[in-house]
Amino acid sequence: MVGWPDRRFLDLIGTQHPIVQAPMANAGGVELCIAAMQAGALGSLPCAMLSPDQGREQVAQVRGRASGPLNLNFFCHRMPAETDDTAWRAVLKPYYQAFGLADPPPAPMRLPFDTAMCAVVEEVRPEVVSFHFGLPEHALLDRVKATGAKVFGCATTVEEARWLEDRRVDAIIAQGLEAGGHTGRFLGSDPAEAIGLFALLPQVVDAVRVPVIAAGGIADARGIAAAFVLGASAVQLGTAYLACPESLVPEGARQVLGSRPTVMTNVYSGGLARATRGRLVDEIGAVRSEAPPYPLAGAASGPLFRAAMERGDFEFMPMLSGQSAPLVQQLPAADLTRKLAADALAIIGRGA
Amino acid sequence: MVGWPDRRFLDLIGTQHPIVQAPMANAGGVELCIAAMQAGALGSLPCAMLSPDQGREQVAQVRGRASGPLNLNFFCHRMPAETDDTAWRAVLKPYYQAFGLADPPPAPMRLPFDTAMCAVVEEVRPEVVSFHFGLPEHALLDRVKATGAKVFGCATTVEEARWLEDRRVDAIIAQGLEAGGHTGRFLGSDPAEAIGLFALLPQVVDAVRVPVIAAGGIADARGIAAAFVLGASAVQLGTAYLACPESLVPEGARQVLGSRPTVMTNVYSGGLARATRGRLVDEIGAVRSEAPPYPLAGAASGPLFRAAMERGDFEFMPMLSGQSAPLVQQLPAADLTRKLAADALAIIGRGA
Repeated sequence: MVGWPDRRFLDLIGTQHPIVQAPMANAGGVELCIAAMQAGALGSLPCAMLSPDQGREQVAQVRGRASGPLNLNFFCHRMPAETDDTAWRAVLKPYYQAFGLADPPPAPMRLPFDTAMCAVVEEVRPEVVSFHFGLPEHALLDRVKATGAKVFGCATTVEEARWLEDRRVDAIIAQGLEAGGHTGRFLGSDPAEAIGLFALLPQVVDAVRVPVIAAGGIADARGIAAAFVLGASAVQLGTAYLACPESLVPEGARQVLGSRPTVMTNVYSGGLARATRGRLVDEIGAVRSEAPPYPLAGAASGPLFRAAMERGDFEFMPMLSGQSAPLVQQLPAADLTRKLAADALAIIGRGA
Repeated sequence: MVGWPDRRFLDLIGTQHPIVQAPMANAGGVELCIAAMQAGALGSLPCAMLSPDQGREQVAQVRGRASGPLNLNFFCHRMPAETDDTAWRAVLKPYYQAFGLADPPPAPMRLPFDTAMCAVVEEVRPEVVSFHFGLPEHALLDRVKATGAKVFGCATTVEEARWLEDRRVDAIIAQGLEAGGHTGRFLGSDPAEAIGLFALLPQVVDAVRVPVIAAGGIADARGIAAAFVLGASAVQLGTAYLACPESLVPEGARQVLGSRPTVMTNVYSGGLARATRGRLVDEIGAVRSEAPPYPLAGAASGPLFRAAMERGDFEFMPMLSGQSAPLVQQLPAADLTRKLAADALAIIGRGA
């Protein structure tokens, strides 16, 4: 029986497998997290779109049904001032009409980690807290660390990885541009500089001393084994778990996964996020300058997304997912977790 | 002594190592090709910017000093009609003035494979002919195949890989977006859909039966071993060889390698190519709509490039290179080749 060639993540977190089930707002959720934890992965709850009470409630559900380490994920952007989104609503107006939405109320947006959420962390004491878009302000970060939680930060460049290590995170997620959902880029802003995982991962591993969790483009056992060869101590998988029956993704939407190329688009939130192309992107383009800054654009586009899903029109909105979507296997999340770990160990054991 | 886990490329081509020294116009050249071949890699001569006589001459030089398989690389784009490049010259005009270039004569451009070059192939009989941007027309491709040369095509998507296999190439280069130089994309055209090697490679391996050569983002032994884990039968390295003393890159320019982020830019040729950012890109942007279509933009920007190099101003022009540039080791090409192969085998042998 061959073991994992790097045990630093396992020793730090105490999971059975060096696999993180990625937090995915509106797509992951409690059932997926529980199933991944039951199979020995680090389960994650995406909290950026939850209220403090919802966060407490979800953690209680998970704790009631699964033991083992749990990760709560938060976003750390600064909220921009409210901006006039008239031009953006004008772009979307034909679609409001098509879906019969007259002047829809704003949809919920991703909110930054704050004192109220920090109090939830102090109360429910997750083993891991992961942050997207940098880290919260010093005082809040200290409070999180004082709970004993291990802190993960997300880096899309070597510069960001060093920035995170300087602020004493316990592990760094190296997010390749293959990843679905919002790019975590928080230093610099030229999207043309986005780096593929194959180049990013070994550079981050060389630059920092903390364990590195590889993310983006990994959806099968080959990818997990290759990430370890490039120096990872663990992997984070999102798209692979989207295809599981426990995800919040409707069955019809799951069929769209991997059926078309993915692109970076700002129609979700105003920030760049990777998604399977949909009819909306085909018609208005992936990146629109009219969209207000992150996360404000979501107030006007969210209602369209919900309306399309309710109608069962799964090809209209871009679907957040990564470039490895064609590699996913539709298995229950616990079976998938165990199979990925066993198959990756077999690949590592037989010498590639 | 552990061997390579996949020997299909080695059996097909007969090299000692499953490593292709990438063809790089204006940057590779005869000495680099010879050194790589002497160490057991597949050496490549970039022929897209050579005349037939120059091609013959370079092959003769290589054959005189190195045995083993040789790859001649050609481009297969269609030449667009000559277009008015007044607007493009207006963008560049301040730089003509700064470099003291009054109305410079057009620079040579990448030309597509044609009957004259096909006659060279029939005469010099390279063991391998590789094509960028698809394949030449049917009759020319048949003539190349009739020489006994193995034919490689370059794919940036699964769709392109299947297209190439349908036309009976002997191996497929899967080019991740991390790769330096011109993206080989030839079906579809949305650059936002470009795929990282981590996601692309296993999808191409699953889609075709011929051996797959991984390219883009690989510059050290970890990358080679990881590519094999993802299913590659060989790897193609460009940026790693740029740093070798045998390359045509001046010493001063070599120091710029990896010092800044890379971006996709069309200032070289009108087509998208990955390059280290330089002052020109900082000042006019990476992608300009005024640039005539590929390869015509190079006629006006080439003289600037040459003038900057002659002045020793290596930070002005973007330098074609991949995202793995920070990983390169400055070793002679033969030493580098042997070290990469030995270190990759050691990684594979110890089970990641």
